[in-house]
Amino acid sequence: MSSHASACPLCRDDGGLLLWRDGTWRVVRALGAEVAVAPAWYRVIACAHVAEWSDLDGMAQARAMALVTAVERCLRQTLAPTKINLAALGNVVPHLHWHVIARFDWDSHFPSPVWGGPQRPPDAQRLAALHAQLAACDAAIVAALPPP
Amino acid sequence: MSSHASACPLCRDDGGLLLWRDGTWRVVRALGAEVAVAPAWYRVIACAHVAEWSDLDGMAQARAMALVTAVERCLRQTLAPTKINLAALGNVVPHLHWHVIARFDWDSHFPSPVWGGPQRPPDAQRLAALHAQLAACDAAIVAALPPP
Repeated sequence: MSSHASACPLCRDDGGLLLWRDGTWRVVRALGAEVAVAPAWYRVIACAHVAEWSDLDGMAQARAMALVTAVERCLRQTLAPTKINLAALGNVVPHLHWHVIARFDWDSHFPSPVWGGPQRPPDAQRLAALHAQLAACDAAIVAALPPP
Repeated sequence: MSSHASACPLCRDDGGLLLWRDGTWRVVRALGAEVAVAPAWYRVIACAHVAEWSDLDGMAQARAMALVTAVERCLRQTLAPTKINLAALGNVVPHLHWHVIARFDWDSHFPSPVWGGPQRPPDAQRLAALHAQLAACDAAIVAALPPP
């Protein structure tokens, strides 16, 4: 393992609840503090340590977007969110990962990005109802993705 | 023009300095208040009013990603940023648009997302130097994109 890999949290750990992987990409559901803002927060993570989207060739990009799109469609079908948010930032962890986040008009930060400021207090009842749907959403994603 | 189109700012206006367009996508450089945080902030915007990434078929997605990647490569080659940030959020304006943003380790918000809180005061000298490079970056993008 190279030195950058051993220092990179996405080389070392799955980075969430592992739902699916092949040799090139994995799909996880976030389990960190970000779940308090948006419980239906998934990530499509490159297995290799690559920083920028444009480091990938067109075939690798197409594969990544097929996975991102499949996750997005599962979120839309299972959760009927107000909006899907997609992002590849990587300022803190420069290891390519796509955030795929279901947003709701009642969530604490909407319409701000999840990284912005809260717009209202959390709605504990709706958050609990959303948490209760996540297992079904996870299962839909696993069923939608191709076998490794 | 349909009622949603007339109400949508990205149906009504270019949404920034127009650098390139064909019948399906356009590329602009942001000109709004967000420039104070990240001057090298570009957008790849769908010409049609479509909300979600997964509303596009694979061919339309591939075309969009070819444009996003071309813009990203121009930013990397012209500006040598610390990191590129990509995002399609659309919570406020649900008309598909990709943000392609060059981030620098000295910028006021780094490593937070541009939508997060500032980490330090703006560096006026470096911001001015970056602004002075934007015309060259715009020209590189125009040269890199295919003729309409």
